[in-house]
Amino acid sequence: MRYEFFYWPSIQGRGEFVRLALEEAGADYVDVARKGERGMQALFKMMEGGRAERVPLAPPFLKAGKLVMAQTANILLYLGARHGLAPANEAGRLWANQLQLTVADFVDETHNTHHPIASSLYYEDQKREARRYTDCYLKLRVPKFLGYFEDVLTRNRRGDRWLIGARLSYPDLSVFQVVAGLRYAFPRSMKRVERAIPRVVELHDRVAERPRIAAYLASDRRIPFNEMGVFRRYPELDGKAGR
Amino acid sequence: MRYEFFYWPSIQGRGEFVRLALEEAGADYVDVARKGERGMQALFKMMEGGRAERVPLAPPFLKAGKLVMAQTANILLYLGARHGLAPANEAGRLWANQLQLTVADFVDETHNTHHPIASSLYYEDQKREARRYTDCYLKLRVPKFLGYFEDVLTRNRRGDRWLIGARLSYPDLSVFQVVAGLRYAFPRSMKRVERAIPRVVELHDRVAERPRIAAYLASDRRIPFNEMGVFRRYPELDGKAGR
Repeated sequence: MRYEFFYWPSIQGRGEFVRLALEEAGADYVDVARKGERGMQALFKMMEGGRAERVPLAPPFLKAGKLVMAQTANILLYLGARHGLAPANEAGRLWANQLQLTVADFVDETHNTHHPIASSLYYEDQKREARRYTDCYLKLRVPKFLGYFEDVLTRNRRGDRWLIGARLSYPDLSVFQVVAGLRYAFPRSMKRVERAIPRVVELHDRVAERPRIAAYLASDRRIPFNEMGVFRRYPELDGKAGR
Repeated sequence: MRYEFFYWPSIQGRGEFVRLALEEAGADYVDVARKGERGMQALFKMMEGGRAERVPLAPPFLKAGKLVMAQTANILLYLGARHGLAPANEAGRLWANQLQLTVADFVDETHNTHHPIASSLYYEDQKREARRYTDCYLKLRVPKFLGYFEDVLTRNRRGDRWLIGARLSYPDLSVFQVVAGLRYAFPRSMKRVERAIPRVVELHDRVAERPRIAAYLASDRRIPFNEMGVFRRYPELDGKAGR
């Protein structure tokens, strides 16, 4: 079965967490909206819902045969079970889902660094609030979330190579993406933060070296970070010294 | 097995979505932190993690025997499967999870109406931003999310009584809570919004009349809404005419 993946074609965004899982799994998939104008039409058609009974609110979507899913963590729950990217037992699956939802919370807060007032307004129209938000975010939230994942690695009784047990699972891919994104968006602040989270940094590197992930990152399937996605480089937000 | 539920004892907050599921299920549970000072100590102990391998970042937590879970949607995924509060087949379980994660997104945005800059600051220190945020939220986000759930009810081929199929599932309880919370927080705006979402309003009423839910709502186990939770009544935020 070939998966059909639907997401905005010009950004990594929330869809990237799904793309990374599909790539690590070596899954057969098509990134529909990146296939020209007809691909975009297919994405819009999915969003309108047509006569479908179960319609999603927003991309990303994954079509697996007749099944259509949305919500990043929900898609990963499905893919994790099918492609060995999560523990097979219930406790492990719930733990992976819990970690992924914690990543999702952090990603939402990261999005708010440039859109603290409304997604419907331009960044330029909420810059003052974005600075105030991001000051708190960099000071308190980034250390809190990354410190949490550092703690999870430290507590893992099978060693600190992966978040869960002795093998990669999909939250590892997501934490990789978060570190990569933060380095892009806040290079100055991240240099300081990374000193306190050596295991998370090593996890990032370990994921980047996975053969399939390395091949993906070097390919044009990986959309470069840019100022339309979740992780945006606005130097005026990157810590007080950066202004 | 008696569940142990851990959440802040003075607010409904995100924990309320779990409480509603436990109540509808008629589950045997103890709301630990509401059992006096020792209960609060137990909550803090859980947060510190001790020597546990798998620690959560923030409440709510559910302890089910040896299993400890966090993240509201994750706890509901577990309870839904165990107590007949979700479809038994995989497609149905994923759909319930997807709807719950959409509720969670909306709840996050609702929290931001009074805390658009930082949870670590008082509302009073971000009132200006809160007004600007809430104007957009009431105008665009409330109709978008509630309209989405109205659409889900309309499209349900088994009728518009419940979000999924012909029976109550845990997202129904959560949509009930959202409507109740919005009515508390934004009574003026909700009067207008509700005209466009008759099925969602009926769903709210239908849930409120469930015998176990009605008994819960009338009991002192239901903490009243207040200005420490997610849904807060600040009249200055409730639409322009309310100022």
